[in-house]
Amino acid sequence: MADYHAPVRDILFTLDTISDVSSITELPAFADVDAEMIEPLVTEAARFYEEVIAPTNVIGDLEGAKFEDGTVTMPKAFEGAWAKLRDAGWSSVAGSAAFGGGGFPKVVGQAMSEMMASSNMAFSLCNMLTDSAIALLERHGTDELRDIYLENLITGEWTGTMVLTEPEAGSDVGALKTKAEPVGDGTYLLSGSKIFITWGDHDLADNVIHLVLARAPGGPPGTRGISLFLVPKFLVDDDGKPAERNGVETVSIEHKLGIHASPTCVLSFNEATGYLIGEEHRGMNYMFTMMNHSRLGVGLEGLGIAERAYQGAAAYAKERIQGRTPDAAESDTIIGHADVRRMLLTMKAYTEAMRGLLYDATAAEDRMHAETDEAKRAAAEARLALLTPIAKAWATDRGVDVASLGVQVHGGMGFIEETGAAQHYRDIRITPIYEGTNGIQAIDLVMRKLPLDNGAVIEGYLDEIDATAKELSGKSTELDDISVALSRATASARQATAILLMAEDPQLRLAGATSYLDGLGTVAGGYYLARQAAAAHDASPADEWLQAKITTARFYAANLLPDARGKFEAAVAGPDLLYAVADEYIG
Amino acid sequence: MADYHAPVRDILFTLDTISDVSSITELPAFADVDAEMIEPLVTEAARFYEEVIAPTNVIGDLEGAKFEDGTVTMPKAFEGAWAKLRDAGWSSVAGSAAFGGGGFPKVVGQAMSEMMASSNMAFSLCNMLTDSAIALLERHGTDELRDIYLENLITGEWTGTMVLTEPEAGSDVGALKTKAEPVGDGTYLLSGSKIFITWGDHDLADNVIHLVLARAPGGPPGTRGISLFLVPKFLVDDDGKPAERNGVETVSIEHKLGIHASPTCVLSFNEATGYLIGEEHRGMNYMFTMMNHSRLGVGLEGLGIAERAYQGAAAYAKERIQGRTPDAAESDTIIGHADVRRMLLTMKAYTEAMRGLLYDATAAEDRMHAETDEAKRAAAEARLALLTPIAKAWATDRGVDVASLGVQVHGGMGFIEETGAAQHYRDIRITPIYEGTNGIQAIDLVMRKLPLDNGAVIEGYLDEIDATAKELSGKSTELDDISVALSRATASARQATAILLMAEDPQLRLAGATSYLDGLGTVAGGYYLARQAAAAHDASPADEWLQAKITTARFYAANLLPDARGKFEAAVAGPDLLYAVADEYIG
Repeated sequence: MADYHAPVRDILFTLDTISDVSSITELPAFADVDAEMIEPLVTEAARFYEEVIAPTNVIGDLEGAKFEDGTVTMPKAFEGAWAKLRDAGWSSVAGSAAFGGGGFPKVVGQAMSEMMASSNMAFSLCNMLTDSAIALLERHGTDELRDIYLENLITGEWTGTMVLTEPEAGSDVGALKTKAEPVGDGTYLLSGSKIFITWGDHDLADNVIHLVLARAPGGPPGTRGISLFLVPKFLVDDDGKPAERNGVETVSIEHKLGIHASPTCVLSFNEATGYLIGEEHRGMNYMFTMMNHSRLGVGLEGLGIAERAYQGAAAYAKERIQGRTPDAAESDTIIGHADVRRMLLTMKAYTEAMRGLLYDATAAEDRMHAETDEAKRAAAEARLALLTPIAKAWATDRGVDVASLGVQVHGGMGFIEETGAAQHYRDIRITPIYEGTNGIQAIDLVMRKLPLDNGAVIEGYLDEIDATAKELSGKSTELDDISVALSRATASARQATAILLMAEDPQLRLAGATSYLDGLGTVAGGYYLARQAAAAHDASPADEWLQAKITTARFYAANLLPDARGKFEAAVAGPDLLYAVADEYIG
Repeated sequence: MADYHAPVRDILFTLDTISDVSSITELPAFADVDAEMIEPLVTEAARFYEEVIAPTNVIGDLEGAKFEDGTVTMPKAFEGAWAKLRDAGWSSVAGSAAFGGGGFPKVVGQAMSEMMASSNMAFSLCNMLTDSAIALLERHGTDELRDIYLENLITGEWTGTMVLTEPEAGSDVGALKTKAEPVGDGTYLLSGSKIFITWGDHDLADNVIHLVLARAPGGPPGTRGISLFLVPKFLVDDDGKPAERNGVETVSIEHKLGIHASPTCVLSFNEATGYLIGEEHRGMNYMFTMMNHSRLGVGLEGLGIAERAYQGAAAYAKERIQGRTPDAAESDTIIGHADVRRMLLTMKAYTEAMRGLLYDATAAEDRMHAETDEAKRAAAEARLALLTPIAKAWATDRGVDVASLGVQVHGGMGFIEETGAAQHYRDIRITPIYEGTNGIQAIDLVMRKLPLDNGAVIEGYLDEIDATAKELSGKSTELDDISVALSRATASARQATAILLMAEDPQLRLAGATSYLDGLGTVAGGYYLARQAAAAHDASPADEWLQAKITTARFYAANLLPDARGKFEAAVAGPDLLYAVADEYIG
């Protein structure tokens, strides 16, 4: 098991070249922070994640969450890690200063989240869900609820969950059935079964605060009749302490492929006392405001695991001696073999491309809130809307590929659990599934995001890529290679985009959705690496680290970007063949 | 968990249209069998695998192989299954009749192996390794050794293993160090450590017969100084019964990502008595004669798991109700959604394409031995040589993809172990690794197989594909679509092939090896589906099952075959960029 070394320089380089973070911190909303504070912040946090959290990853997986007599017990190594994380405050650097956060842009918080996901993805989910609960409570909770719950959630005394899914309501949230009956004193009694509740129960904190979607009487069917409730595991007494057990029972936890140290619970609500968040029947609206952020958070897990799988594979390849390269007299470390190097550079290129995509999307999230000019805010909102499904799906799909390459680089040892490569491969497999499957992301992209502003948003993004290709052209033969490949790929993207935009039959878009997203993500990845190559070219030619950025972009352009064209061809193949085979002959 | 339904009609159709099995059974070597016996044979065997073996898959995985006090204990469900399998004789239908086998062509045996792998891959390995041990003993063992060991291996009283790998000798077998000291009475004493020994110890049989690679004194270093020995777990007494324990100790078993019910052992040989197989220093030659067959066997595991994952996903998609298709008033089963259907058809198309490739390669193996004409034998041998690395690597890589799609179709349930989708994903991940990693296969393809007959073998194969494309042209608009796509893909394949063949620097071939194999496998897959479509077109148009073959080939041509071009572009990108980044900046 290789140690985790936080890629501090990569993160800072991406914050600079892709997010243009100093232009964000200059906005009035961030008057209290300064771009120069970011480097020491990331550097210091890196040490914490490397030293405190990363060592809990393998032992957490081996021990796993355990369920007995209605109670969930967490791995011993997690004792204290949770409190240390909240105490250190790294998880709240982007939180609002009014509630004890650091007041930094979200894209800086993203750097923390990336390191957290690399360090221990299973553990990171507790933090992620607690942060989501905090955000919902901050924005939509009554003063009374905020007084009682917010501080304990922020300090990590208590943790939060998001309770949406039911056995018959997964991708289709609107099908949920859990009921909330008003008692008459402003509270409700919730009854129903919920599944897939991440960190739904555990023994690391004194209380678990569930944010639950349920149906109050009088609402329409579907998503417009759903309300949001706060339901604590223990009711809180007048002193603000956990007291009587509420009517929420942990029925079981799931036996899963990965993230064994993240307890995935079946919860049964039996007339559990709940407190309304915001207004009745508007629960899904509140959830939607969280959605882009949560989806980027899952994309970030793809990046985080990819980064760690890449580091593990590279460390192994530098150490493992096996076979000879052509003309060599002696056996070599396997990093010397062309095919192993191809795998490592593929892992590197995808990981850095994902980082660019995610850090661009989150910068848009910051600008959407903080830009002073309304047109800029609207443009940032549209950009975030476009990039979110691509970032979530492409980063997680490529993350799975990178983790699989990590297993492959290890050869036979990759299949043995002790190297850790297999754990990454298992853990990351949930990311294309939860927070909206990647199929749902693709549908969102072609049905809701392509038509934004009559296609002007996607076209503007492709224009931007072409402009970068043009900018690279003529600067050097190295950058020319990238430029040509990027222009070609963008041309394919434009063709497919035009066909999907013109399609009158929604089934044409739906049939091509995943292939289109895949192709567009591949082009976007090339774009972010190209921008980093351009920045590296303009900086010191003596800096080998920067030169490696140019080589990585060239490698991607020559070896991975060509995959886009095939995807765009498939994207416009249409739905007819899908339905030409009767169900009977499938399976 | 869906039941397994052996795809009997698919298997028979492939044996007919791709392997042309009746032309094989007509050869004098198969005088005792008849093509008409194949259908009842496969049908009857299918029942056995479905009813007896397939139900052991999940429980075997849950219980796993256990190691305690130097002993390996197998899952209870396996008790009896091993004996039933050998008694039924399905695993030896292609065995030589002289030794109790059925005397059928290997390609018919392959049908059995496919069903075995689908039923329980972990369990199937015991059979596969025992068969390899039998084959080596049959061909190269002395009469005395055959008398003592062969019958018990064939009847399943005892099982066999292949003992090659050592901690420092994996892909580079020539680096192995285990020593064999001659005692003087014709026997040897073996000492050394061996790892990754599949089914190296267990409690299902009374003896385990190891076939071990080791160094006898006087041989050159590397692979030419390696000898092959038979080393029984228990020495056999004069009555042919297992007696005294030999000096082979089971040190541990591995904790693995998948195939939990296949014990992967670390074995320690401490002056264990061994019997020479064949001549000293020729052990690797004997192993090489097994190699093509073993590699196709692993490719077949890719197919077997893909088939079962596909069946499981299709069954789930027909049952799970979630979300509405456009214009639908009610929620639908998810098989109605375009994106889910795309996943299922992708699984179907890849699985059938793999089957074609594997059944073609094994037919070549049959012809290589059985054709009466020397030129035909040589042509078959060359074809097998070319197809083996493609079949092993492409079928296992696509098998992993199909198993991953199987998880995805299940949504959140796919990540939960109880659906079985996750087990397929874990189990299949070893197949791109063992029996020569897929990187090793790619190197074999570009370094040894492309140059065969100065490139005439690969060019002949591409000519054959073009001929099929031509044959399809003009028959119907459906077949035209396939024809055009196949011609285009073959043209890309020719370009890349020519560049790699002309390359003087071996590093150019090595750098492009994996991408080239990937592209070529994709084209080959399209070719076999196209041949099946042509056969379906020529048969009854009223047969919907046959019409689905044409649609599947069209789906592949429109959605998956376009991926080949990007791979061929990457295949010729060259090695320079791989080495332009210093090791220091990797990881």
